[in-house]
Amino acid sequence: MNFENELKKRQAAAEVLIAAYLPEEEGCAKTVIEAMNYSVRVGGKRLRPVLMQAAYEAAGGKDTLAEPFMAAIEMIHTYSLVHDDLPEMDDDELRRGQPTTHVRYGQAMAVLAGDGLLNLAFETALKVFDFADEKERLCGIRALRILAGKAGIKGMVGGQCLDVEAEEKGLELTKEELLFVYANKTSALLEAALGCGAVLAGADEETVSEFFAAGYELGIAFQLQDDLLDIEGSTEELGKPVGSDERNGKKTYVSFLGTEKAREEQKRLSLSAAERIGKLKLKDDRQKEAAEFLRELIIALVSRRK
Amino acid sequence: MNFENELKKRQAAAEVLIAAYLPEEEGCAKTVIEAMNYSVRVGGKRLRPVLMQAAYEAAGGKDTLAEPFMAAIEMIHTYSLVHDDLPEMDDDELRRGQPTTHVRYGQAMAVLAGDGLLNLAFETALKVFDFADEKERLCGIRALRILAGKAGIKGMVGGQCLDVEAEEKGLELTKEELLFVYANKTSALLEAALGCGAVLAGADEETVSEFFAAGYELGIAFQLQDDLLDIEGSTEELGKPVGSDERNGKKTYVSFLGTEKAREEQKRLSLSAAERIGKLKLKDDRQKEAAEFLRELIIALVSRRK
Repeated sequence: MNFENELKKRQAAAEVLIAAYLPEEEGCAKTVIEAMNYSVRVGGKRLRPVLMQAAYEAAGGKDTLAEPFMAAIEMIHTYSLVHDDLPEMDDDELRRGQPTTHVRYGQAMAVLAGDGLLNLAFETALKVFDFADEKERLCGIRALRILAGKAGIKGMVGGQCLDVEAEEKGLELTKEELLFVYANKTSALLEAALGCGAVLAGADEETVSEFFAAGYELGIAFQLQDDLLDIEGSTEELGKPVGSDERNGKKTYVSFLGTEKAREEQKRLSLSAAERIGKLKLKDDRQKEAAEFLRELIIALVSRRK
Repeated sequence: MNFENELKKRQAAAEVLIAAYLPEEEGCAKTVIEAMNYSVRVGGKRLRPVLMQAAYEAAGGKDTLAEPFMAAIEMIHTYSLVHDDLPEMDDDELRRGQPTTHVRYGQAMAVLAGDGLLNLAFETALKVFDFADEKERLCGIRALRILAGKAGIKGMVGGQCLDVEAEEKGLELTKEELLFVYANKTSALLEAALGCGAVLAGADEETVSEFFAAGYELGIAFQLQDDLLDIEGSTEELGKPVGSDERNGKKTYVSFLGTEKAREEQKRLSLSAAERIGKLKLKDDRQKEAAEFLRELIIALVSRRK
């Protein structure tokens, strides 16, 4: 398997799949649908659907059961970006070089587009019941609960809350609070991606918890890599190791650990996540290939240079 | 049955039920949870849960299956109000005499609180699977689809989209477009309330569609009553029949029909909705009482003076 090719292939397939689940831009509510579709189409790496699909296959899934959930998790990720970009939140005018949703469609429509996407995510995930048999139905229900749980106040929304609050009130978060933000704002949806994949494949409890744990570790490692790249980028630029986050008065987890220890921790977490996938019992070639891809993806994500 | 007493009893029961499903205000995301609970506790008539419960009982439901959905629909209603009140939307500072969520907790936290509530609604409705048997599980799945469908772009969000767009761009909506706004912004969640109640009770298809139709008619009649009260209120105030909506340049469905015809149409719709409930096949006293209450509630809602 050539990892780069495989990644591109899987991203392209996710792209097609997501597009198929986007609503028609028609009727009296056309504008909000356009704003929703625009937000999804502005794109990204489709990381969560790709992770979910690979987890589904690595855990032995052979059907299309994960597909509605792949589209759903990307809609949840997108809605969170649309609302995050709002003037009252991060106030970002560009995302991937394109005007953000509120710049393009106005602030009210961006609020509604985010609401519409979150709601559509559940409508979409529920489509699993169009074709699930009785056993799969139980997996679908469990996956729905995972998705809703990891997206909500005990997941992504919870992480955003503390992040927003710290920013607004100029609070200095403790090391534990920063870990809470990383675990909820970043890890939670990655846990959902891998966990839903495994659950929909009908994996046993032990396997499911390995996938959850890998999602958690991947999220924290991913976030640490972000912080480290921020510091390295600024070092190259300024010749001294102070990141732009720190110059903006924003403490990161790296501020507590120091660059050296943060790098070690990041490596430890990503290796541990990859090992969890590596030690799965794999029965056939499809499972083996998906697991191998997943391991390489985890390593690639935390070794990225930008 | 004394209707007023029964209504108060049912509202009080819904209040207790909703409170039981609100999350604990603890942990690192305490602030968003406080903002969510505040928004729900500011209150209201708990109309949707009360309608759902009565529909569930009138359709023969005897269990607690509707309870998670009763809390869920109130959370969806509340999230829509929180986002509607935002400065970029209706910009309202007070609701039921209390500061709106963004006035009390800031705009960013209000966006997150709305997101948190919409997500929590699905988490809450999914609790039906904690105790549903196999047959009930199918009803639960169908009710989830109804709830998500009526809350989304083909329901409430869709109605809000056209309403917001007309307001922002100063568009004059056609009669058909106004009906679309009423049907989606108001009727959709009432259809969900009655429809979910019937579906969770395991009612047959014919009964389910009667409940949906009643929800639709109730919503339009409710909205017409709003418009008529606006005109009558202004007439008393000003001595001429021009409503505050019209003075604010906002056309209502009544502007097209004229007051007389609008009153007729409102009466026709509400009687039709009540009749649909009146003609149900009712097997026992509990069903009969619930249906009687529901009929009276429909009439009371569209005869209200404020």
